[in-house]
Order: sequence, then structure tokens, then C-alpha cells
Amino acid sequence: MTAEALSPTLSTDELDLIDAYWRAANYLSVGQIYLLDNPLLREPLAPEHVKPRLLGHWGTTPGLNLIYAHLNRVICDRDVNVIYITGPGHGGPGLVANAYLEGTYSEVYSGISEDTEGMRKLFRQFSFPGGIPSHVAAETPGSIHEGGELGYALVHAYGAAFDNPDLVVACVIGDGEAETGPLAASWHSNKFLNPVTDGAVLPILHLNSYKIANPTVLARIPQEELESLMFGYGYRPITVAGDDPANVHQQLATALDEAFDQIAAIQRAARLDGEQGRPLWPMLVLRTPKGWTGPQKVDGKKVEGTWRSHQVPLSGTHTNPEHRAQLEEWMRSYRPEELFDEDGALLPELRAFAPRGQRRMSANPHANGGLLLKDLDLPRFTDYAVPVDDPASESTEATRVLGTFLRDVIARNADRFRLMGPDETASNRLSATLEATDKAWLAEVTPDDENLGPEGRVMEVLSEHLCQGWLEGYLLTGRHGLFNCYEAFIHIIDSMLNQHAKWLNSSREMPWRAPIASLNYLLTSHVWRQDHNGASHQDPGFIDHVANKRPEVVRVYLPPDANTLLSVADHCLRSRHYVNVIVAGKQPALNYLDMDSAIAHCTRGLGIWEWASNTTGEPDVVLACAGDIPTLETVAAADILRRRLPELKVRVVNVVDIMRLQPESEHPHGLSDREFDSIFTTDKPIIFAYHGYPWLIHRLTYRHANHAQLHVRGFKERGTTTTPFDMVMLNDLDRFHLVMDVIDRVDSLGSSVAGLRQEMADARLAARRYTREHGEDDPAISGWTWDPDYQAPSLSQDTLSEHDR
Amino acid sequence: MTAEALSPTLSTDELDLIDAYWRAANYLSVGQIYLLDNPLLREPLAPEHVKPRLLGHWGTTPGLNLIYAHLNRVICDRDVNVIYITGPGHGGPGLVANAYLEGTYSEVYSGISEDTEGMRKLFRQFSFPGGIPSHVAAETPGSIHEGGELGYALVHAYGAAFDNPDLVVACVIGDGEAETGPLAASWHSNKFLNPVTDGAVLPILHLNSYKIANPTVLARIPQEELESLMFGYGYRPITVAGDDPANVHQQLATALDEAFDQIAAIQRAARLDGEQGRPLWPMLVLRTPKGWTGPQKVDGKKVEGTWRSHQVPLSGTHTNPEHRAQLEEWMRSYRPEELFDEDGALLPELRAFAPRGQRRMSANPHANGGLLLKDLDLPRFTDYAVPVDDPASESTEATRVLGTFLRDVIARNADRFRLMGPDETASNRLSATLEATDKAWLAEVTPDDENLGPEGRVMEVLSEHLCQGWLEGYLLTGRHGLFNCYEAFIHIIDSMLNQHAKWLNSSREMPWRAPIASLNYLLTSHVWRQDHNGASHQDPGFIDHVANKRPEVVRVYLPPDANTLLSVADHCLRSRHYVNVIVAGKQPALNYLDMDSAIAHCTRGLGIWEWASNTTGEPDVVLACAGDIPTLETVAAADILRRRLPELKVRVVNVVDIMRLQPESEHPHGLSDREFDSIFTTDKPIIFAYHGYPWLIHRLTYRHANHAQLHVRGFKERGTTTTPFDMVMLNDLDRFHLVMDVIDRVDSLGSSVAGLRQEMADARLAARRYTREHGEDDPAISGWTWDPDYQAPSLSQDTLSEHDR
Repeated sequence: MTAEALSPTLSTDELDLIDAYWRAANYLSVGQIYLLDNPLLREPLAPEHVKPRLLGHWGTTPGLNLIYAHLNRVICDRDVNVIYITGPGHGGPGLVANAYLEGTYSEVYSGISEDTEGMRKLFRQFSFPGGIPSHVAAETPGSIHEGGELGYALVHAYGAAFDNPDLVVACVIGDGEAETGPLAASWHSNKFLNPVTDGAVLPILHLNSYKIANPTVLARIPQEELESLMFGYGYRPITVAGDDPANVHQQLATALDEAFDQIAAIQRAARLDGEQGRPLWPMLVLRTPKGWTGPQKVDGKKVEGTWRSHQVPLSGTHTNPEHRAQLEEWMRSYRPEELFDEDGALLPELRAFAPRGQRRMSANPHANGGLLLKDLDLPRFTDYAVPVDDPASESTEATRVLGTFLRDVIARNADRFRLMGPDETASNRLSATLEATDKAWLAEVTPDDENLGPEGRVMEVLSEHLCQGWLEGYLLTGRHGLFNCYEAFIHIIDSMLNQHAKWLNSSREMPWRAPIASLNYLLTSHVWRQDHNGASHQDPGFIDHVANKRPEVVRVYLPPDANTLLSVADHCLRSRHYVNVIVAGKQPALNYLDMDSAIAHCTRGLGIWEWASNTTGEPDVVLACAGDIPTLETVAAADILRRRLPELKVRVVNVVDIMRLQPESEHPHGLSDREFDSIFTTDKPIIFAYHGYPWLIHRLTYRHANHAQLHVRGFKERGTTTTPFDMVMLNDLDRFHLVMDVIDRVDSLGSSVAGLRQEMADARLAARRYTREHGEDDPAISGWTWDPDYQAPSLSQDTLSEHDR
Repeated sequence: MTAEALSPTLSTDELDLIDAYWRAANYLSVGQIYLLDNPLLREPLAPEHVKPRLLGHWGTTPGLNLIYAHLNRVICDRDVNVIYITGPGHGGPGLVANAYLEGTYSEVYSGISEDTEGMRKLFRQFSFPGGIPSHVAAETPGSIHEGGELGYALVHAYGAAFDNPDLVVACVIGDGEAETGPLAASWHSNKFLNPVTDGAVLPILHLNSYKIANPTVLARIPQEELESLMFGYGYRPITVAGDDPANVHQQLATALDEAFDQIAAIQRAARLDGEQGRPLWPMLVLRTPKGWTGPQKVDGKKVEGTWRSHQVPLSGTHTNPEHRAQLEEWMRSYRPEELFDEDGALLPELRAFAPRGQRRMSANPHANGGLLLKDLDLPRFTDYAVPVDDPASESTEATRVLGTFLRDVIARNADRFRLMGPDETASNRLSATLEATDKAWLAEVTPDDENLGPEGRVMEVLSEHLCQGWLEGYLLTGRHGLFNCYEAFIHIIDSMLNQHAKWLNSSREMPWRAPIASLNYLLTSHVWRQDHNGASHQDPGFIDHVANKRPEVVRVYLPPDANTLLSVADHCLRSRHYVNVIVAGKQPALNYLDMDSAIAHCTRGLGIWEWASNTTGEPDVVLACAGDIPTLETVAAADILRRRLPELKVRVVNVVDIMRLQPESEHPHGLSDREFDSIFTTDKPIIFAYHGYPWLIHRLTYRHANHAQLHVRGFKERGTTTTPFDMVMLNDLDRFHLVMDVIDRVDSLGSSVAGLRQEMADARLAARRYTREHGEDDPAISGWTWDPDYQAPSLSQDTLSEHDR
């Protein structure tokens, strides 16, 4: 349907006012892109007033400014709580301009005052060395959404709206962005939005018809298909279209009134009248020209309304007098003298048009979520501990234990914690959480369904993009959460992680942005236990990806068992402004540490396991491990060594926090050389069994003294559908191979152990043969446990050689 | 609309036959999941006949088999050329079963014969150690699509259909997969499919209503919304729904006839009647129960028609007699005795139901694209060479030069080469290609548009997922292409790259799969030149991601200038079965090598640049570089050193192929120790300026002798919107800092050079000051060139110290 009213929504005065406000924002936007000086054009524009390098995006900006002005009217009229997310966030000058018009910019950045000098600085700093980015970014008051990478505006909007019943998130989606996969899937987020306890999202699909150099798909399908598409996505579209400002102002005002009326009606019906089910939420389609109100033609070519207005429509303003004249004419067309006073301040009647205080979209605390962040009410994680009398003697599914803890985290924090997962929460053994809550679901429910409901705190959709984006939006607006995911497929959101990590990193340096809760990942169904799915589900490389981010914001934990997982999870949920990656298995696996030991071990991040070592002194070899399966194989290898080479002094080191392996100069968790050397020695061979790609361990440790003696086993991209032990053998990470590595590296053993080496090689062959014949691992291997009562016979080296011969 | 015919499409005989064929496929599917032996149930099922570990996915399989059988009917009836892509490819047993029924499986794997013993092996090998994966994979005849990671079925289908006018790609999309972002965007691929020169894609949205543990969104929206959504995506939906096999057979036969009629009509109209524009292609919605024909209830819980049938409905068959009895009853319900003869071979009338030869979907050569691959007709890349009289004296936009080469590649290979890009081909300076072709576009065109047309070889859509997926589908069916992308945003397809690399790696080992063309990336608009966009567009980590893949299939090239880029691109386009990553800048940058030198240099992959070195003998220090910007800074640093420390013997090494840095044991391109040592020395400091994250160079070289002396500069995740030189300074990669690094590392220089070190530090400060003041780099820096005529004065070390004092 198209927004048409019998009598115009805006009176002439209102129309004039809103248009003037829009012109002011447009004026400031163009000024940022072009001007170094002479901000109010009080003198004719000269070359020295213009930036030598013109960097910015004009095309989308007038549309963003138009919507902003109209939302201001709605906010004032209705006293509603609105934040503004702009998918086309490369229209940065527009959002900066509006924050400046509202006074927020000067409040946050005191140097940028509301006068001519402040405006000059505002213009100069934009996309200028030492200044601000060209996109909407953490630097921009009122934003939770970096405008660089396209695709995540709408999913962030939904994340912001969850559990914020009074909030309306207005979300502009550019028609370029609308072509991305994540955005195309995000529309369906309405099946997960509860009209009672969540806020509303108002998507505004802005069709200006062009991307950088091409028309856009959604602008070039018939209106009938477009409306069908939106209805198919579960929305009631309202279209606004035109290129005459006065007419579009009226249409847009009418459309927004209609949309906000519908939102209010939906919420009233759900909240007061108890209406059930999923409503059809309104959305806007706005068709206006790209680069609207900018130069129509430049050098004889049409610019307004085409892709040529995407970035900087007039590129020669520094040297080409004709371009400069055109720029001056363009800027003067906004009639700055009617907008700003003698001193360069916005005229009072325009200032009065904007909302006040926290109603300003640029000052809304939801867009600076740390301000609203409340600590989680966490149960004592120690209450969920698995009893461990003897190390490595009994098995537990670590994530299942974590699930009981998360169940109670959810129960105690129903307004501020969500668990995301791409249809894998049960598969990842976290189903205890469903004792405390449902899975969020507003679509149809049938009698066979279980655990679905509108208020569910567990969110499941088969899209890692949506899980990640919802959680980002939720965290950025001051709440908490955890994303549980199959390890291999977390790569789907590599690029989203990049952007979030960049946001965390740059906002760390902004005192006015309060820290937010960390982005927590639980990666399970990991590379070593893909018995069902094989190679396609085997990739431990997300850790490598994360390790490339700024050390100030990334943490990676590989708890080896259930109690360490609990301890790590508690720590991560309490932390702020990090990306925490936890990798832990879901299959039954041995417990090594009782809770006290687990806490001590996790606090150190790594440590010597004396119970698995056969010396408390200087070792002959260090067996190090990180990750549950490598830990199992390492401890099993230590068991073989204590029985077969009892005089070999073996130290077992387990690493939970792999950032500890870096030098302290490289990461806040890094060990000093002295600490590293005291654990790993300076000259003894280290056989390191690692969960992921082995070279990551080299990359973290290459500056340490003993790096030359470090030998790492890990995943070598050898995978398939097979048994657990066959998988570790395929990658030479198995206990037998680790023993062979020890034999090969400890020179002092000499040739006396050739027999044992051969025995290990034979054991590998036998294990493989067993597996291929029986379709499962030899129980002697899969059922191995550590015997705490084993006493090494006091064999001399001679006896040993005898034995091996 | 719903498929309803006045008289049934299938005669009773046809119905019986198609149902029997379906039952045969279902029988073989269940057998693969469960049985070790007794394949035809000629004796009662005993525990030893059942696999101890039950691994596989039943839920989607009967649907895949149903569609397969019905497509067989259509293929035979119409003699059409069809391949089959199954999004729910974890239904692997179904596709294997069908390939076996068609005889293809036994042709490819001679051990799996068409008799009882062959069937026994077929069953046993499935998801069994040493056997085949549980998913559709490279091992599966007839597949171009691994069934592990969801989201890419439809985009692969379109990639396969491009330039294959006689092909129909039937593509099953599970309703789980349909929730992913990439799939949600893929529907719009129809705006890029030319009914004249491309084939057809028939999407079949299979709504079985459940994922692993949850209902699916598309199954739980009203039919009206679903049809609207499909129409909005540009399709004409035909719905088939039911749970009575006979009824569904009739409906599906009618629906497929209708769909194939519509496809034929669309193609006729476009090809013969010259009809213009984008047609509304048909698509099917198929609603059938999950796990259809499987156990209805297990242990009192409903299984058929619920998520409980997703994997293995009966989990206790090895030990639980009741489950085993239920399995036997289930398998016997398919009446194997009516399907297979005494020897275990499919009955002739059923065998006759399947298509013959290459019409069999399992034997269609399009699904083994290497068989159809024709070499590219490549112009001589040397014809596009940039003349280089003196190194580092003139600038060229490297990718613009490449564009002219690609233009002619396109012109000569109009049936087999496509260039993909997410709206960045012009931005990446490849617009010369548009002299030879259009950008593919079937949606509406307006008078302002340029270079759009149905037959375009350049494909632009703002979705890296679609670019990647289209290209993968295109390559896997035996064609060639190049994906040009902003460097930072190629991370969007990290996970897709994983799957493609795994496919390449595993198919390398299958003699029956012919090699395909390499997947070629041109990454430009790279980290060092994001003047416009800043931090969000700065990430060189894709190289690290690719370097984690199997060395046999990955190659990474960093050509430093235009001529080396041409040479590398030519090499990549000729190569087979690799992932080639080329990183090259689009901004004006110095040329270093004339074409002959460029070819020689690229052939070696790395080498000493004697013109930039001041010694041909043993150096005091090695300045190594990889990437265009690091090369510029390195050569500029060498220039400072030759002028200021003329007695310091400097060797400049440039690396194009960074895999050369690995030991030969680790990568086929790796250098021997001897070669590495001869270039990098065994004991002299190496200052390595690298394009990306510095630790990658450490990870590649840590096994080499001189690693301890290696000092790498690269991107430290310090970025923003600023000038080019400010960017390199932010990351300590600039020429001045490289000189400081030399001073700090070459012990022999001693304290005599403290003055020069201070001078360099001052030069950095001055450069920053200039940039912040003027908004651009100091022309003395940005305009630097190498003076080939410069003659070092014969300064003694004393004179130098004097000079520095």
C-alpha cells in the first residue's frame, strides 16, 4: 500500500520546519566531505577552503538525513524511545551532522563547539588524517553499528529490540545491502520477536536504485514483486516514493505515523488484550533519488539519481574552478543563512525541532549499551562441579554440565541474557537450559513441538549470521549472551567477528563509551569428534582468525574437562569488552581436575600437572597439551612413558588460555620469559599436542627461548567420517605417535628404545586394523583411564633396554 | 498454485514402477545406515548384522529419493539433461543409493558390484572407518555439492546453469538450509540468468518442517506468505503436499511436468520468439513428512514427521532386540524381494526405469566438470606489458592493466569464462572488461544504465556469497573464472572457501574425477589503501585463512607491480585444481620490473633484486618484502641506506609466491634449505616487510636456519581513514622505520649511526605533522622514485660517522 492521506499530515509550518532541518543536515554533510575552512560560506569559496583529498559518500546521505529528521518529528510528537541503525553507514557525514545538530556531538567532543569554529573543525576532521572515519563508527554518538561491511543492519536492529519492550529500532536498509545473504535472512527475525516483552523494529528499505556502479536488484523488480516479497517475509509494506521534497515530506510523515500507529496497536493488542501469535509488523519502502539535492549534472553527465553520486560527485573542487563553483552553488542551495545564526549556531526554532536529552537518537543510552549494562546474577559455578576423586578415571560430557549452569544463569537473568545457537543447542548438549526457558518462537506451533514459546531465552535459527548479529545487537545495547556453535561453522561469521572486534578495540579508547559485556563463544562439536559428519565439519581455524585481532580484545580458552569449562565460562560471563572463544567437547571425556584444582589451573591459564608427570624436578621432556582430545592423548602418552621408560623424567603441562603462550609484550595474558622458561624449560624437547592447526602454537611462542625445541602436533586437515581414535591417528596426534615423538626428540634415549618405537608404530597399525574391522575403536584404547595407584618398578636403563629388545 | 490434474498424470503401472524405484532407493539408504551384513534380509536380522556405531541422516533421505525417482521419469520422458544438487546433502545414503541403482556406482567403484556381495560392501562402507563420508561429497558420483555446510545449494545450481543452455539443474533446498543468509539471497540469482544462453534452475523447496531439533521458519508461515515470498523472489511456485505416497506421486509427477513445460516454454519464447526480459521461472514447494516411511514411533515417541527422525531413528539396534525388530520390519516394508533378484541385482524393469548413459544424473558429465573442461584461449599476456625502462621510476595502476588482459580473455572465451565481483569491478579498476562485454542483468534497465545486458560475462551483485557460489558452481561444471573482491570482505566467504578447498583436496585423490579449473581470487582495494573507508575495510587475514588449507591445493601470490601481476594472472588462469589468491593494489604504484624480468621473477617466485641491492656478494642485512606497498617501502628504505650508509651491504629480496618461504617438506612450492639459505643467508638479519599479519611469515619460515634473525613488519591491526603513508607509519612498516630496524639489528653498525636513527624518527614525526596539516602526504615522500643513475660516493665509515654527527 502507498502512504496517502486525505489531508496532508504536515501543516505548512511543520513542512517548512522539517525541510529546514533536513537542509541543515545536508549542508553539514556536504561541508564535512568538502570543506577545510569557510564553513558558513561567509566568503566566496576559494581553493584553500577545500580539502585536497575528497573522501566520503554522498549518495546515501540525503536519504539518511531525511529519515532522521522525520523520526525526530515522530519522537517529539509521540514521546517514543527510538534508536537509529543505518545499514548504509558509509553515509557517515549524515549521522555526524545530526548528532551535531542535536548538540550531542559537542557534549561528547568538547572541541567541536556549536559555533563557526566548531563547525570548521567538524568539517575538517571528517575523513582527515587524525580525524574521524568516513563511516558511521564507534566514534559516532548514537550508533551501535559500523557502516563499513554491509549486511548486518537489520539483524543488529532485532538484537537491540529483544527485551527492550519500550524501544523502537528504526533501521535503514540500503538496497545494496539488501542483496547480501545475511540481510536477506534477517527479515525473518520477526518470527523471533515477542510483541509483549520485546521492542519493535521498523525496517526502512531505502531504494535509491544504485550501488557503487550498478543498479540494485530490489529497485529493479516490479513493485508487485517487491510488496509480495515483503509480505512473504511477514511485513506490511508502506511505500513512499518521489523526488519532490515537499511531496515526499508529506508522504513520509504520513507513512511514519501509520507505521508507529501500527506498532502501537500491535503492542497494545499483545500486551493488553492478550492477543497471541505473530503480528504482521509494518515496514517502509522509501524510493528517492540517490544523491538527492546534490548536483544534477557534472561535466555533462547525470549525477543525481545515478550511481555517479555514490561517493564524491564533484571530484575536482580543489583545482577545477567550475567544480568549485558548482559546489558553492550546491551548498548555498540549502540556504545556510536561514539555518545558522551569526555565530554559526543552529537557529533556536530548528534546535527546538529536535528531541531533548536521552530522547535524542544520538544520545539514547541504548546506543551506548555499557551505560545500561547490569551485571549478571550468576549462580556459584562451583555448585555444578563434577566430583573428581582420581584424575582421568571417569568421564563426563563437559557441555552437558555447563548446560546446568547456563540453565540457572538463564533463570536468574530473564531480562538480560540470551543463548544463541544455529539449531545446535540440544546437539551441543546444552538442553538443560530448556528446563528454565523455551526456545524463542513466534511462528506456528504444532502439538508435536517441544519447548517453543514467545518468551524463550534460547534462540535457535539455522543461520550463524543471525545468531551472531542478534547477539551483537543485544550486547551493544547493554545485555549479555553466549553463542554456542559447531566449531567448523563459526567461520561463517569470520567477517562479522572482524567488525565487532574492531568496534571493541576502537571504542576502548573512547572514555564516553562504557564497556559492554564480552562476546562469548562456546565452540563445540569440534574437529576431533565429527564421527557423524566428517571432513566438512572439521575446521579448528577460528582460533587462528581470532588470534589475528588486537590482543587487547581477544581471549581463547581450551578447558580440558568439565570443571575447567565451568570455571572458564564463569570468568567469561563476568568479563567485559572482550571476544572470548571457548572450545570444549560435548562427548563423554575424562575429568582431570576437581573443582579447586580447576579454579587454580584456570586462574593461572596453564600449568604443570604433577599428577601426570613423573618428576617434580627438571624434566627430560615436556609433554604439553591444549584442548580436551590432545590432553587425553598426552596423558595417555605419559602413562605409556611412565610404564615403559620410567627413568625418563616427563613433565606434563596443560594450557587452558593459549594467549598465555605469547610473550608478555605481545598480549596482556602473555607470560614473562622467566615464567615461560620455568614451565617449558630452556633446552628440553617440548612435544605439544594442540587442538587446532599446529603452526598457531609456533606463531605464539617463536619469541621464546626454547622455541627451537618445540614440536607441535595438531590438526593437519586430515579428516573424514571415522572413529575418534582413527581421527587422532590420521593427524599423528595419538598417544602412540606422541611417544614416538618423544623417542625421536630425546637424544639421551639413544638407540636403546628402538624396540619401543617399533612397538608404538605397531600399536597404531593394530588400532587402525581393529577400527576398520569392527567399525569402532578398540575398547582397550577408548576405555583407557589413568591408574593413580600405579607404582613404577625401579627399572634401570639396562633392564629397560633388555625389556625392549 | 497447487498441482492438480483432472486425470492422473501417472498410469497405475507408472505409479507402481516409480513407487518401486523409490522403495528400492529407500531400502538401500536404510541399509547403508544400519547394516554390516545380511543386506537382502535373507535371514532374520541378528546383532552382528548391524553396525555398532550408527551414523547418518535418515530424515531428509526419503524426500531426496522421491524427487530423484520422479526426475528420472522426466528425464526419460523428455530426454532432458538434468543434474541434481541436494542442499540437504547429509542425506548422503540417498544419493549413493541412486547412483548404485543406476549402475554408475559400480562403474566408478568396481568393488561395489551389482549383486549381494556388492550391496553388502555398499552398506558396510557407509560412514565406516576407511569407507565413505556420511554426506554427499566428492566421492559421490553425480554430485558437485558437498552436503556438509548448508546454504550454497541454490547458488551452486545457478553457477552450474550459466552458459549451459541445455542443462536443467534441479536443486533441492531443505527448509533448514533456507534459513541461512546465503540461501536467502540466492533466490535472486534469477535476475542474472539468461533464458537464451543459460540453462534453467528448478528449485525444489522441500519443507519437511524440522531441522535437527526445531521446526523450520518456512514450514511455519502461512501458505499465503510462503507463496508470496516465492513470487517476490521472482518465481511461480507449484505446491505438492501430502503424506500418502500414491497421492504425492501423482501430485509430484504433475508438478514436475508443469515445471518442465514452463521451462521449455520460457526458453522457446526467449530463444525462438525473441521475447525479452526476465521470465518468472517455476519452482516447487514439496511438503512431505520428515523421515517419511520410517518408524512412526520409537520407544513411545513420535518419530516420522518430527525432528526425531533427523539422524538415526532407531539408535539401539545393536543391543536392543525391540529396536532391531523394528528396523527389520521397516526395511521389509520396502519389499526388497520385489526389487532385487536372487543375486541381489535390481530387477530389469526397475533398471529400465532409470535413464541411460550420460543421461543418468549420477553419470552426467556436468557433475564431473573436469571432463568437459576446455582450456582457455588466452591472449599473450606479454602483449599487455607496461614498458619499464628504469625500475621504480613510473607508476601504473596494476589492476587497470590486468583489466585490459581480462577484457581479451573474456572476448576470446565467451562460453567459458566469467568475472565475478560484488559491485566492485569498476572500483577495482577492471572496467576495461566492459569494452568486451556487459554486466549480466535480467532485471529492469533504465536509460541511465550503462553496460548491462543479459549476456554479460561480468557478474556483479552485492553479495560475496553469491559471487563465490556462482563461481564454484561454474568451475565445478568445467568452466573458468576469477573473483575480484575487496581484500577485507573476502572473509565473508571464509567458510565457503573451506568447503571448496576440501572438495579439491579429496577429489584430487579420485582418479575418476577430472581436475577442474582453479578458483582464482584477485584481492584488491587492500589493507594499505583504504583511504576512503578506513578500519572496517582493512583486513589482510584471508591469506592466513587460506594458508591453513592443505598445501597441495593452495597458492598465494603478491605481485609487486603491473607486469608481475600479468604474469601471475596468466599462470593462475592456466592452472588446475588450486585455490589461487592474488593480492594486488589498484592505486597508482611504481613499476619495478620489465616483462622479461617479471616473468623470470614470478617463475622463481622470489628472488634477489640486484638493482635495488648494493652488493652482489654476501650482504650485511637482507631487506625482504612481499606485497606492493611493502615493496615500495623496502626499496625506498634501500635507497636511504645506499645514500646514507653506503658501506652497509644491503640485499633486497622480493617474494611473489609466499608459499616459497616454507620448507619443501611442507609445501610443493617450498624452498630447499640450501636455496632458502642462499637467498636469506644463515646468519644475517632479515628485515621483512610483509603485506599482511606479520606472524604468517614466521609461521612459514620457522623451520629455516636463519629464523632467529628474522624480523617481520606488517599489519598490526592499526587502521583508520588516513593517507597512504600515514597508514604504513601507523604499522611501523614505513621506509624510515625499516631503516631504524636495520640500525637496530645490524650489530656491526654500532653506535655510529645513532644520529641517522634519530633522523629517521624525526622524519616520521615530520611526515605525520605534514599529513595532519595538509590532509595529504608530503609529496617528497609520495613522489619518491628510484634514481638509477645515483652513484654512491666512496665514503669511508669515518666520513659517514662524521656526516651523521
